Amino acid sequence: MNQHGAAPPPTYALARFGQIVELGHAAPLRLDSGVEFGPFPIAYRTFGTLNAERSNAILVCHALTLDQHVIGTHPVTGNPGWWDAVVGPGKPLDTDRFFVICPNVLGGCMGSAGPNQIDPNTGEVYAAAFPVVTISDMVRAQVMLLEHLGIPDLFCVIGGSMGGMQVLQWAASYPDRVFAAIPIAAAARHSAQNIAFHEVGRQAIMADPDWRNGEYLRHGVIPRQGLAVARMMAHITYLSETALAQKFGRNLQDRLRLSFGFDADFQVESYLRHQGASFVERFDANSYLYITRAMDYFDLAADAGGELWRAFVGTRSRFCVISFDSDWLFPTAESRTIVHALNAVAANVSFVEIETDAGHDAFLLNVPEFHAALRGFLRGAAEHRGLAAG
Amino acid sequence: MNQHGAAPPPTYALARFGQIVELGHAAPLRLDSGVEFGPFPIAYRTFGTLNAERSNAILVCHALTLDQHVIGTHPVTGNPGWWDAVVGPGKPLDTDRFFVICPNVLGGCMGSAGPNQIDPNTGEVYAAAFPVVTISDMVRAQVMLLEHLGIPDLFCVIGGSMGGMQVLQWAASYPDRVFAAIPIAAAARHSAQNIAFHEVGRQAIMADPDWRNGEYLRHGVIPRQGLAVARMMAHITYLSETALAQKFGRNLQDRLRLSFGFDADFQVESYLRHQGASFVERFDANSYLYITRAMDYFDLAADAGGELWRAFVGTRSRFCVISFDSDWLFPTAESRTIVHALNAVAANVSFVEIETDAGHDAFLLNVPEFHAALRGFLRGAAEHRGLAAG
Repeated sequence: MNQHGAAPPPTYALARFGQIVELGHAAPLRLDSGVEFGPFPIAYRTFGTLNAERSNAILVCHALTLDQHVIGTHPVTGNPGWWDAVVGPGKPLDTDRFFVICPNVLGGCMGSAGPNQIDPNTGEVYAAAFPVVTISDMVRAQVMLLEHLGIPDLFCVIGGSMGGMQVLQWAASYPDRVFAAIPIAAAARHSAQNIAFHEVGRQAIMADPDWRNGEYLRHGVIPRQGLAVARMMAHITYLSETALAQKFGRNLQDRLRLSFGFDADFQVESYLRHQGASFVERFDANSYLYITRAMDYFDLAADAGGELWRAFVGTRSRFCVISFDSDWLFPTAESRTIVHALNAVAANVSFVEIETDAGHDAFLLNVPEFHAALRGFLRGAAEHRGLAAG
Repeated sequence: MNQHGAAPPPTYALARFGQIVELGHAAPLRLDSGVEFGPFPIAYRTFGTLNAERSNAILVCHALTLDQHVIGTHPVTGNPGWWDAVVGPGKPLDTDRFFVICPNVLGGCMGSAGPNQIDPNTGEVYAAAFPVVTISDMVRAQVMLLEHLGIPDLFCVIGGSMGGMQVLQWAASYPDRVFAAIPIAAAARHSAQNIAFHEVGRQAIMADPDWRNGEYLRHGVIPRQGLAVARMMAHITYLSETALAQKFGRNLQDRLRLSFGFDADFQVESYLRHQGASFVERFDANSYLYITRAMDYFDLAADAGGELWRAFVGTRSRFCVISFDSDWLFPTAESRTIVHALNAVAANVSFVEIETDAGHDAFLLNVPEFHAALRGFLRGAAEHRGLAAG
């Protein structure tokens, strides 16, 4: 019997998705939009072992286009997991010591309820009938998952970019369930410029005639070109100008001189085209619309009466706020705003700005200072939590 | 008889384009691609009066999507000319004193030879058969125009963004014909990041099924949605993050609360959609492909054996290099690179970085310090040139 007094929800495992649990059987999830949603699946993976005290759980929150496959070989792309550098035995998120959980977000396309899933109420793919969800909705679905797993609170919640938004939402909404919080390359509200970039990506997708007003799956097509354009544009924002200059500069691709045409003369063009084309093979266009919308809607201060510090009143969580100096999508100023709000409520907060040319994507890359910061903060927090040394 | 000993080229005036002259009758323009191009039309407008000594001519070079309608009411949009704030009686480019010439660039869509024009050799619209042109090709067409107008040299050549690229090309290729040069918010080569943004815009256009491999005009359609997406994305890069935050922030458009849908909830979305939709009414999609390509190809140092200073050896022109501190598309570092190259050949160069939140578009806006800098530099240069005070 779970806390609702109902039968335990069904759980099953699929190679593509990891574990899947159907939540909301006893009571639906009331979305911020007012929709009563459920039952719905959440796909997740876990790494490491939950200790007897259930006190060593770390929730990893993923970014826009990532998923629960934090480490190991990705079942679709065959690439290593997106946080192979950070999670694993002996790594900063040491799976010999911590129990790491990563669910696919609500609205995603890797097994959790999202627009490419079957609506159990109609037996049809949701497509454009999927409700618009928020970061807060994603977090409440994660709370339901943790209750299902019997984990009363988190040693740590961590994530980069949109993952960092979820971390902030967790800390604000469930302060008693968060011992430590690590928002990385994040912001407490999505900026006008970032909403603008998202809107262009969405327009590119919706301009593709194969989008079919969102109903493309039942027509057996996908808005391949629109989604590729959206990805290409977004990808530019994930890298720094310096990184692009160093990696590609004006180098030509497979040729000695300009072609005086519209082929990919430059390596950077060829690289972007590849990014667009490969993204289409692994990500759902409607999910892209819904998840970007969730990020646009994120504004923690607005939800707390207009002042960010109010979101954190009374918090006893320990925070480590991390930014990267070459990140122009979620610049350090956004992290500083979070730190100031935490300072205003006398929270326990460390602030680390990492020097790197890698831009926003630095949180995914092998940046030793970043990993050292994670390791140091987690070691200290674990000591305070009374977790045995790894 | 002109310099080629042939009959003078035909000139005609059209309200939409200003004056149009057909150049290259006596000898074609040899493009950088190797194509022998011509005869071809160049549309231009002039403002003010050429003095008896023919020594007061200022060539204004326009940016990517602008044209020869520098001041006055634009014949297509009905809006004021793009440099109404800068050009006119008593303004920094004082038409009581100077003779201002602005041609539509080669590859443009406002009367000069471009992909939306008729190829005189076939009687059909060029479309994708138009040759890829370079900034240098544009400048050589301008040289032909000035020869037609009987103007041996320029008091000044000035322009922002792609206009600044033309200014640099003029100074490098025709040092004896340039008394003063003012490259604004420009660069001596297009960066990897900027090539990347252009490539995404081109992919958005070419992904639109109405592009029809460039042959849309003969099918009676235009790639409206693709061009709008390209413009929306580019428009973000013309503004600073600060300007977007100040102008729009997270303000909602015509509503009190979020719609939980994909309409334009936010003002910034509504604004961008408007920018995209209105651009389609005034600009040709193929021109957008060709002109962005010309910018991508621009690399003054590569043309000078790999070292930028070599492009300016022996120059006696006076330079005023201007940048805007919030411009992240053509940041100050690009202008500084130009200044360093000019310093290396002991050129006469002033460097002005203007403080403004307006981003790249600052060169089009009413920024008093910028206009004061133009006024001061032009006054000094005119004195040195021996032009009578205005």
